Amino acid sequence: KEEKGDDLDYGVRVPIVRMKFGEVAEATSVVVFPVCKAEENDREILAAPLECRSGGDFGVVEAEKGWKRWVVLPGWEPVVRLRNGGVVVAFGDARVLPWKANRWYKEEDILVVMDRNRKEVELDNGFYLVTVDGGGLKVDRGSALKERGVKESLGTVVLVVRPPKEETDDQLSDEDWE
Amino acid sequence: KEEKGDDLDYGVRVPIVRMKFGEVAEATSVVVFPVCKAEENDREILAAPLECRSGGDFGVVEAEKGWKRWVVLPGWEPVVRLRNGGVVVAFGDARVLPWKANRWYKEEDILVVMDRNRKEVELDNGFYLVTVDGGGLKVDRGSALKERGVKESLGTVVLVVRPPKEETDDQLSDEDWE
Repeated sequence: KEEKGDDLDYGVRVPIVRMKFGEVAEATSVVVFPVCKAEENDREILAAPLECRSGGDFGVVEAEKGWKRWVVLPGWEPVVRLRNGGVVVAFGDARVLPWKANRWYKEEDILVVMDRNRKEVELDNGFYLVTVDGGGLKVDRGSALKERGVKESLGTVVLVVRPPKEETDDQLSDEDWE
Repeated sequence: KEEKGDDLDYGVRVPIVRMKFGEVAEATSVVVFPVCKAEENDREILAAPLECRSGGDFGVVEAEKGWKRWVVLPGWEPVVRLRNGGVVVAFGDARVLPWKANRWYKEEDILVVMDRNRKEVELDNGFYLVTVDGGGLKVDRGSALKERGVKESLGTVVLVVRPPKEETDDQLSDEDWE
């Protein structure tokens, strides 16, 4: 189900997940994240709530402040750990990401899950969120940032989520449901 | 799966749903609602965002204003329709609801899904959210409200959600998962 990101340059292991239609999710293990748009600037990323606790029998999510844009993701392992500092950046075109292989160059919406508590540009083969001169947000490689002398980013990429694809093969059909 | 609410007085058909552990939800059909606590007052209900659109490949939810408490529910039919005006009130004790049958009197958390666009106390056998003298929110029968001359409520109850119960019978076990 998960396509490991070994297609990314330098063998980085950032998981890339393709959402499925009818994805089987335990309702008790979904995760809710604040969302920022890639067209916005770093202020938006800094303004999004940092702490999103979920609790009680129904997993009600409570952030330390209000926010108007949210997304629900299945409780994938890399995101469940991000109770604090997690944020999702929504990109309108996956081709802006620094993929290595051509087959990832597809014009599709993409979500990038970030950890805002890991701002240091640490690894050459890590991926980090930075601001673009002139506005907007982008993802860059650690090595590229280091070359430019950038030591701090807005956060480290922990997961990339691709949209569901129109495929009938391995998808559940209506008849599979009660 | 749904226990129809014919146990409620006057045969009202407000659906009562018991959440299941490992509930199978289509990730593309969950619904996100702003949450208010029953201890709070009507100002909270009026302040919660009215319009929560979800769109795009990932179903990102966008409200017209920020809010800090949210819940994710499976896309049950009565709640999917509530894109506008929906709000969830979290009660700490199901016994405060005006159930008819004793078997519903159980001390457990409960969520009440409300439609704030239907404020008129219309049906004797409908259920409505009102403020309690001295603070807090409660659910009352239409007939009881009419007797007291109350014509407008904070909203109509469309669904009651009970928490998952510790049962192994009809639950999916770990082995049922890949």
